[in-house]
Amino acid sequence: MQYKDYSKEQLFEELGTLKNSFEEIKAMGLKLNMARGVPSPDQLKLSLPMLDILYREADCTAEDGTDCRNYGVMDGIPECKRLMADLMGVTPDMVMIGGNSSLNMMFDTISCFMNKPAEPGTPPWGLVPERKFLCPVPGYDRHFGVTGYFDFEMIPVPMDENGPVMDVVEELVKDPSVKGMWCVPKYSNPSGITYSDEVVRRIAALKPAAKDFRLMWDNAYCIHDLVEDGDSLLNIFEECEKTGNIDMPIEFCSTSKITFPGSGVAAMAASENNMKVIKNKYKYQTIGYDKLNMLRHVRFFGDIDGMKEHMKKHAAVLKPRFDIVTDKLGEKLEDYGIVWYNHPRGGYFVSVNVMDGTAKRVVELCKEAGVNLTGAGATYPLGNDPYDSNIRIAPSFPSLEDLDKAMDVFCICARLAAVEKLTA
Amino acid sequence: MQYKDYSKEQLFEELGTLKNSFEEIKAMGLKLNMARGVPSPDQLKLSLPMLDILYREADCTAEDGTDCRNYGVMDGIPECKRLMADLMGVTPDMVMIGGNSSLNMMFDTISCFMNKPAEPGTPPWGLVPERKFLCPVPGYDRHFGVTGYFDFEMIPVPMDENGPVMDVVEELVKDPSVKGMWCVPKYSNPSGITYSDEVVRRIAALKPAAKDFRLMWDNAYCIHDLVEDGDSLLNIFEECEKTGNIDMPIEFCSTSKITFPGSGVAAMAASENNMKVIKNKYKYQTIGYDKLNMLRHVRFFGDIDGMKEHMKKHAAVLKPRFDIVTDKLGEKLEDYGIVWYNHPRGGYFVSVNVMDGTAKRVVELCKEAGVNLTGAGATYPLGNDPYDSNIRIAPSFPSLEDLDKAMDVFCICARLAAVEKLTA
Repeated sequence: MQYKDYSKEQLFEELGTLKNSFEEIKAMGLKLNMARGVPSPDQLKLSLPMLDILYREADCTAEDGTDCRNYGVMDGIPECKRLMADLMGVTPDMVMIGGNSSLNMMFDTISCFMNKPAEPGTPPWGLVPERKFLCPVPGYDRHFGVTGYFDFEMIPVPMDENGPVMDVVEELVKDPSVKGMWCVPKYSNPSGITYSDEVVRRIAALKPAAKDFRLMWDNAYCIHDLVEDGDSLLNIFEECEKTGNIDMPIEFCSTSKITFPGSGVAAMAASENNMKVIKNKYKYQTIGYDKLNMLRHVRFFGDIDGMKEHMKKHAAVLKPRFDIVTDKLGEKLEDYGIVWYNHPRGGYFVSVNVMDGTAKRVVELCKEAGVNLTGAGATYPLGNDPYDSNIRIAPSFPSLEDLDKAMDVFCICARLAAVEKLTA
Repeated sequence: MQYKDYSKEQLFEELGTLKNSFEEIKAMGLKLNMARGVPSPDQLKLSLPMLDILYREADCTAEDGTDCRNYGVMDGIPECKRLMADLMGVTPDMVMIGGNSSLNMMFDTISCFMNKPAEPGTPPWGLVPERKFLCPVPGYDRHFGVTGYFDFEMIPVPMDENGPVMDVVEELVKDPSVKGMWCVPKYSNPSGITYSDEVVRRIAALKPAAKDFRLMWDNAYCIHDLVEDGDSLLNIFEECEKTGNIDMPIEFCSTSKITFPGSGVAAMAASENNMKVIKNKYKYQTIGYDKLNMLRHVRFFGDIDGMKEHMKKHAAVLKPRFDIVTDKLGEKLEDYGIVWYNHPRGGYFVSVNVMDGTAKRVVELCKEAGVNLTGAGATYPLGNDPYDSNIRIAPSFPSLEDLDKAMDVFCICARLAAVEKLTA
């Protein structure tokens, strides 16, 4: 029976029961973390052979003869550009290889356009007083952090099971001070959905009032399938080519969740015009990023097929974890009518909506019981979830046993917070 | 006899002889590069054991238990902060570890202050229309590239054998739109000189009109001695502490010329106030830089003493190269009175002044004869050497044999350009 159908008495009885259960789990003294999309030690082990794959002089030479131990090659060695181009479905000439973090490349891209025009004839964004950025919600808190840092007004755009609601986006881009939109188009963080073909086509067909409107196309989970037949996503550059919008998308990816987070290789892809502006920054910013690490990655994977094989090993570690989360939510919460969640086919998160007005309280209760979750509201710009309902669960890091315990805690807390509210 | 004492006839005879010599060296078909301060393969070999120093899970754990393969630790692992702090002569809490490039950290620092106030209550530099930066000359072209990119007017400040001429600096900082100064205080690029104690003290005692005046203290060659008893440099933070100017200096260094250029570790040090502004940027820009590479460095060196020992091996490779350059200049040019050069005790360059008005021509002639030098004027902001006299020679990369040939070419070209000018 759903809580909404409980009588007052039944609710108060339930409150008492849940308070007891909560005290019991608190007494267990757990210390579990489901706050961020962090690979588990079992996943990190998969890439250990990469660590000593280079060890003698001959191993350090790129295919074009570049000594990767030395200076040079601003946009990356050819074989790494090829690998990352294949990952993004673009040509190597569209690719720039960065350091260890695609977030860093995204920050630097926004920073670049703050100081220099993204499009000839437009002012740099730093000189646009009321600059705005579209933020599909729920979304990735670190994206919102970047545009927040640069003082953009962030406009939340609702998401449905197909991606951002395009009627809303098409309306908003009529404002010339709207300079771009954050997108995680595949296995979106946190909702796990992949943009439908229609959504990608409507994005590509946008006619923004701002000539310098840019899509921050963060393809962070492009080959991060949990199942055999993963989602497929239309190629944004191909679609934008058709609509004459080739300068709109800038794509980002990295191997952070493929090899080692923090010691991976990041890359971006963009049109010739965009690359001109972006490389004119990089040529002053760096002599070139870590070519030895690029080479390690290429030697380890061989090519994109090798990388795809490697991702199956990650899936084998991750899938049982995701199953625990969705199974527990189904078994222990669904009957009460207080939870809505997705069954992601890839990515790193399960996005859970608990009863409106209780997300903060659920996170607080979990913390009290030793289970650390992403802060409620983190998936909204400035941490402001208008319904106080969305919680992002990151199941990758804990062991299966710990995850099982953590989800029990979560379910008790979600029920307790709901009943507290209904009896208040 | 000096060229200035030659008769017209003697000069024309010399011109003929030199033209013949030039054709002879051209016929040799050389392809040599002395353009940039790039370590030679012999130097890169010294750090090869670092490549496979991490190879199993246990090797990836930092002293505080951090798994360096995973996300986290924005400002660097403790043992790496300690190592780089010792390198700069500061405490670890003043240090932030970056990616593979101190140039990148310098660019990011200027970029940060372009968008956010360096000092509370001042406008970000991007909003200062006539912003200026002091550039001791000759200096490092990539420094000037950064402030040029951000549209600073770059004011050249003359250098003498003690550093920037401080009478000039003290006058210039009375202008509130002067926001900072580039400094390579030890084995300066390219002049090789180390700032004298008096110069460092006068820098520390500056009273700039701009409250947000910042020293970009690029200590790139802090332990890069060529001789046993290297130069010593006063500690800028200690001096600035005494004068109440602790927020003025921001120090940078890297292991690019200690281990692998492009795959080293960069670091910066600054006061608490500066770090607050800078880390408030980094916290949105990155989750943290490459901790595995930090760990490789610490494991390889142990501590600062290990790093110093390692630098002796570099010196053993480099010193003979520097000797060839200065010996050749002495033997083959000094008599003609057309060359002034330094005898650096460390760093990566020999700064040569050829006869006024001939530097561009010398570089051009060398190029024609197959010897690639740094572009003439590169050591001045916007490439503008008012005397067309300074040439930066980078002797590190070529083999001893090649360097010997390259310097013969250089000396012929310097003489030819001088005599061409005197007979024009």
